[in-house]
Amino acid sequence: MGKTGLWLVGARGGVSTTVITGLAALSRGLRTNTGLITEHPVFKNCELPELQEFVIGGHEIRTGSLQESARAIEKDSNSIPGDLIRSLSEELDKVDTEIKPGILVNAGEAIHALDQRLPGVEDMDPGAALTKVVSDLTQFRESNQLEGLVVVVLSSTEAPLPHHPSHDSATALLEAAENGVREAFRSSTIYAMASAQVGASFVNFTPSPAALIPATREMLESNQCAYCGCDGKTGETLVKSALAPMFAQRALNVLTWQSYNMLGDRDGEVLAHEDNRSSKITSKGELIHEILGEGVHSQVSIDYVPSLGDNKTAWDLIHFSGFLDHRMTMQFTWQGCDAILAAPLVIDLARLIETSRRRGESGLQSHCGLFFKSPLDSRTHALGDHFDALISKAKSWDSHR
Amino acid sequence: MGKTGLWLVGARGGVSTTVITGLAALSRGLRTNTGLITEHPVFKNCELPELQEFVIGGHEIRTGSLQESARAIEKDSNSIPGDLIRSLSEELDKVDTEIKPGILVNAGEAIHALDQRLPGVEDMDPGAALTKVVSDLTQFRESNQLEGLVVVVLSSTEAPLPHHPSHDSATALLEAAENGVREAFRSSTIYAMASAQVGASFVNFTPSPAALIPATREMLESNQCAYCGCDGKTGETLVKSALAPMFAQRALNVLTWQSYNMLGDRDGEVLAHEDNRSSKITSKGELIHEILGEGVHSQVSIDYVPSLGDNKTAWDLIHFSGFLDHRMTMQFTWQGCDAILAAPLVIDLARLIETSRRRGESGLQSHCGLFFKSPLDSRTHALGDHFDALISKAKSWDSHR
Amino acid sequence: MGKTGLWLVGARGGVSTTVITGLAALSRGLRTNTGLITEHPVFKNCELPELQEFVIGGHEIRTGSLQESARAIEKDSNSIPGDLIRSLSEELDKVDTEIKPGILVNAGEAIHALDQRLPGVEDMDPGAALTKVVSDLTQFRESNQLEGLVVVVLSSTEAPLPHHPSHDSATALLEAAENGVREAFRSSTIYAMASAQVGASFVNFTPSPAALIPATREMLESNQCAYCGCDGKTGETLVKSALAPMFAQRALNVLTWQSYNMLGDRDGEVLAHEDNRSSKITSKGELIHEILGEGVHSQVSIDYVPSLGDNKTAWDLIHFSGFLDHRMTMQFTWQGCDAILAAPLVIDLARLIETSRRRGESGLQSHCGLFFKSPLDSRTHALGDHFDALISKAKSWDSHR
Amino acid sequence: MGKTGLWLVGARGGVSTTVITGLAALSRGLRTNTGLITEHPVFKNCELPELQEFVIGGHEIRTGSLQESARAIEKDSNSIPGDLIRSLSEELDKVDTEIKPGILVNAGEAIHALDQRLPGVEDMDPGAALTKVVSDLTQFRESNQLEGLVVVVLSSTEAPLPHHPSHDSATALLEAAENGVREAFRSSTIYAMASAQVGASFVNFTPSPAALIPATREMLESNQCAYCGCDGKTGETLVKSALAPMFAQRALNVLTWQSYNMLGDRDGEVLAHEDNRSSKITSKGELIHEILGEGVHSQVSIDYVPSLGDNKTAWDLIHFSGFLDHRMTMQFTWQGCDAILAAPLVIDLARLIETSRRRGESGLQSHCGLFFKSPLDSRTHALGDHFDALISKAKSWDSHR
Repeated sequence: MGKTGLWLVGARGGVSTTVITGLAALSRGLRTNTGLITEHPVFKNCELPELQEFVIGGHEIRTGSLQESARAIEKDSNSIPGDLIRSLSEELDKVDTEIKPGILVNAGEAIHALDQRLPGVEDMDPGAALTKVVSDLTQFRESNQLEGLVVVVLSSTEAPLPHHPSHDSATALLEAAENGVREAFRSSTIYAMASAQVGASFVNFTPSPAALIPATREMLESNQCAYCGCDGKTGETLVKSALAPMFAQRALNVLTWQSYNMLGDRDGEVLAHEDNRSSKITSKGELIHEILGEGVHSQVSIDYVPSLGDNKTAWDLIHFSGFLDHRMTMQFTWQGCDAILAAPLVIDLARLIETSRRRGESGLQSHCGLFFKSPLDSRTHALGDHFDALISKAKSWDSHR
Repeated sequence: MGKTGLWLVGARGGVSTTVITGLAALSRGLRTNTGLITEHPVFKNCELPELQEFVIGGHEIRTGSLQESARAIEKDSNSIPGDLIRSLSEELDKVDTEIKPGILVNAGEAIHALDQRLPGVEDMDPGAALTKVVSDLTQFRESNQLEGLVVVVLSSTEAPLPHHPSHDSATALLEAAENGVREAFRSSTIYAMASAQVGASFVNFTPSPAALIPATREMLESNQCAYCGCDGKTGETLVKSALAPMFAQRALNVLTWQSYNMLGDRDGEVLAHEDNRSSKITSKGELIHEILGEGVHSQVSIDYVPSLGDNKTAWDLIHFSGFLDHRMTMQFTWQGCDAILAAPLVIDLARLIETSRRRGESGLQSHCGLFFKSPLDSRTHALGDHFDALISKAKSWDSHR
Repeated sequence: MGKTGLWLVGARGGVSTTVITGLAALSRGLRTNTGLITEHPVFKNCELPELQEFVIGGHEIRTGSLQESARAIEKDSNSIPGDLIRSLSEELDKVDTEIKPGILVNAGEAIHALDQRLPGVEDMDPGAALTKVVSDLTQFRESNQLEGLVVVVLSSTEAPLPHHPSHDSATALLEAAENGVREAFRSSTIYAMASAQVGASFVNFTPSPAALIPATREMLESNQCAYCGCDGKTGETLVKSALAPMFAQRALNVLTWQSYNMLGDRDGEVLAHEDNRSSKITSKGELIHEILGEGVHSQVSIDYVPSLGDNKTAWDLIHFSGFLDHRMTMQFTWQGCDAILAAPLVIDLARLIETSRRRGESGLQSHCGLFFKSPLDSRTHALGDHFDALISKAKSWDSHR
Repeated sequence: MGKTGLWLVGARGGVSTTVITGLAALSRGLRTNTGLITEHPVFKNCELPELQEFVIGGHEIRTGSLQESARAIEKDSNSIPGDLIRSLSEELDKVDTEIKPGILVNAGEAIHALDQRLPGVEDMDPGAALTKVVSDLTQFRESNQLEGLVVVVLSSTEAPLPHHPSHDSATALLEAAENGVREAFRSSTIYAMASAQVGASFVNFTPSPAALIPATREMLESNQCAYCGCDGKTGETLVKSALAPMFAQRALNVLTWQSYNMLGDRDGEVLAHEDNRSSKITSKGELIHEILGEGVHSQVSIDYVPSLGDNKTAWDLIHFSGFLDHRMTMQFTWQGCDAILAAPLVIDLARLIETSRRRGESGLQSHCGLFFKSPLDSRTHALGDHFDALISKAKSWDSHR
């Protein structure tokens, strides 16, 4: 079996650093495989790529090394302890050599305000950006003799992109790129286009809505690329998708579902900007109405709380009525480390989407709804339904059946 | 369509009083049908019994009237408000005339200690008790010209019943009843036997393990009775069955699932007795290990907190590890009114099991797992699986398909 | 002992209705005196006014009767049950005859948007409003032969009032009123001025900052009126004032104190308006910094959740470091009925401030800090300190010492 | 200023290891002084011992080194990170040389069941144990030329000791020791006696009730030793002592105060034994009744949850009624690292009690109530009262006043 490239956009952010450290730690047997859905026995005969097969590269717009990122995580949440960093320093340094300066296209105020930006990384013309990303991906594939290539967007949440006529067809969007129509793009749009051009699989792990618009989906499909998104379902929304069906299945009438989120890392800093927050809140909020109906009073609030670091804390109140219209209450508190919850999903998605590629199954990977807050084109948001869909897919892939 | 009898054991307890008040209130359009699963659109063409078809009777060992029970509930949790009691006083008084003094067989200390016992209700010989219950049920059926009859055990949780050789066959158990072997029985055993003898459907809504032993199941089956149990899943365990699968589906490693329950009504008073509590805790605890594996440290504690009344409050801590074996926490608080949550399930079960009877589908109703903490012979405890099974059954019943 | 008038501004709002119903219920012995601080044994020999001595009147801008208000409360939170309303209907109707149409001066959008406004109640010229309030208070005092009179502002939170030069002296403010300078006033400013003019005691129980500005305080003081404020401390802020000193006393370093509030009644509806909310948040937020230092990251969020009604629910997260700078967490949930918590404080304040008047103790009642979120001129926010101050005052008043 | 000895009983347990590591870290400026109450400005001119003045020794019954204990803590809760252990390895090794094998006298099953017991440490005759402890303390004092000496009991909670006639007088207890009446003693009794004999100050930081019985208090007093106890107030009980007064001060009627505690370290393992747990629960429970009256339904439950390690988690429910007897609820969750919360209190107590000794103030240190769950002879349990008492003491010591 050949090697598979995993190209991480935002390659030294918290999730990427955890993916990279985790793949190295698991390959060396230093940690258990907890959190990896693709280690479920149902995948045993599916010939998924081995963890050791992945070669990692990526784009990053900020300065620093992977070891520095890992040490910042150690300090923040201790989810990557110092001894692990020391043990894996060689592997981290090696990946660093495959990380190139990222692109910025119409990136908005919050992202430009981030400190520690790499010198020379400035907002670019979309055509030039596309050329650069295509070139970087191609070089990565050739120099590492990769058979498959998966691009995963893990950069900060972008502000919504107002609709532009070019969004509706591949031809129009390519023309807009050539003509430098910057307002038709965000950086994530470029990554989707580049993936289509080089024939890579594409995963939008962020809520950024500019990545998978009709035009980019058309490009990916016509180039036989597999893709999926949007917005990795890691914490509070995961719980909601498990819990909301319970109220529906018991015919309980949810009056109010209120979600209060606090987070403190760079993600929180970016989300403190109203524009970027709105992409996230939309993605988090639709689930409740989809499962429980439009009548539910549901609000999602996000506050930036620096001291929590990556240990996101969410508190939810569910106020509901039951028989005889009597009112009752449920509350939950979720205290989860975001990168720890997200990283295994990225690895799972890379394994699953590469398996699709090998089997010639391109286009939207609808069996991957389990992984996303806003699964593309999905009619359901219930966790159990998505799990069943993934298990069915695994069974269809099972070479022993 | 004829009339269906609903015989409630513990007929003036909190759940029964809510069932009776609720059926009357819904029949008169005074409340919405929130909480009734059988109002789901999937049952539209299943010809379930209408709510108005039910005629209610039952057994009770304590003094007082249904109006008094309803007023006690008003005071305790206001889940049956005073205006509703006033509106339905005639209906409540009418049901009162169909409630007979209950039986006690080897009932144990906690139940004997309950105050307000009806004069003359004393621990009986099993044979005499069986004769009395059969006679009461028969008279109820004849005097009301009932087509179907459903017996639901809603009395206080009994202490476990040590195994007795007669439990293993119908013949042996009948012989033990005739010979007055009191230690082979609890009151609930007698109710199951009587249901079999008169051909009634039987629902064990309590955790009492003495009801559905091999011998009584054999009797019910050989008399073509439909039956199901055990232990209505109303609150904290309901949440656990919705939430535990999430951790499994995400390959998260649950280290500890700790449940602390407080309740204050008669149920709590009885559960303050170690013997009776053990039946309950066993029923509540097995789910976590079934879904998440034997390695989870899981404890269920129950404390009697009088001031809470029927507003049971449960607090759960879930301590789990994720990727890189990093540890995280989830907590939830459930504040639910127990009778309000239980009553619609009793009505749903009566409608479903009577539908089975009408269609000649006797024996264990395995599609009713959704309703129970310890569904008999079930291989799964996941809420979603049980819901899917019920929906499938409904579709199989649909006359328009 | 003569009679004391209690004039409630917002006389049919939730707090006022609870005050009025409660005074009647306690006078008739229908409820215990739970919640009344002035029933503490230390006040035994302080000759506080008896509950029966109070005659109630007030202003209201909305339509409806006290019985209707009480029934709305019954429906919303059941904190005033139907049987109590029926028992006290005469008393409620009698108070209704003493409630006059209120005034509106520069009241802002949120308050004008309230439905059910009394016909004829429109924004007024400040001079005319002052004349009307003085006249209503005078008539109330004369017709009831009152010895003392206490005015309590219980109306909806007003938006902040931008500083106007006339705020700094009594003379300038009176001149502004005469000249119709509407932007120098809010309704609460007029109430403070009228209280001063008729020699009534004045309590600002709301956070509205326009009531006790330098000019109105000067008027109250020069007329020998007792006064205090601002913003009754009823729920989450009460807990904060009890808990924050613990962290200080234990030298624990609070990093973050995050407060998330949900409320659903008219108060919540008004606070959904950004302007009005800002008055509230300022009042709620300053305590943490005063007790724990400016370095704490502290945010107060308020969301309008209609289904909760008056059962306000607040969730707080406290993230702190201890020895060796190790980080730990505390959370609390407060589920309290706002009017039930506020009403006894209003009665306590009326008794205390009338006692001061009788003893010739006018001006700021600094021993009443216990009752307020933002106690005027107070150097401390710690609950224990305020309690000690009140107890000391009681001891100084004790006629047996 | 001379050197002060700090003798820790249970010298390599979690609290002692944190005390030892912390004193070294603070002396070297590697951490802030967060958590040390004696760093409050009020103590500035009280001439407390400097942190560098302390020389540490102690008794331990288990095998292992301080570095090993510290590494176990790193793994368990990361409250002592690896880098700190590496930096302080010399200091830890040095203290190790001053730790002697401890004694066991009538220690009970749970403590004997602890694994890793030092070879040769067996239950002893009380007379021999007393001789050994006196000898070890004397040698420690002489070899280090100590001026003052403070003994702090930090060993596992002992089971209650049934009353024995010898407990009532010093003479009788000494006689019982000589006669080998083992059932009149626990290990902690011996430590108090030895402290009296060598003239050391004595702190019972555990709930073990056998330490400060009338006979040992008589010995300490007649030897001019300062002493205090019992049971360091570190977590949930601390919160209760801050919060319970709020309900009293607001005349709210607490119906129920329910406390559920989970802990996972050695402390938890020992408390899983019913006998030992009862000492703890008594100590934790009395506060609520003292502050809020005997009528409160209050239960304290403790469960052993291994995965939590030293991160104790407590959940409390407070159910209370307010005005018009309306019922409301408060809940809190406390997630605190026990050793981190306890260690600074041990250091504070050592500084305070040594200051007393230097000033000739022997006997019960009643100004130290702030530090204990069950402060000896205290009439109050309110945190604020205890804090005020400590501040008053500090002012009385202030050399600049």
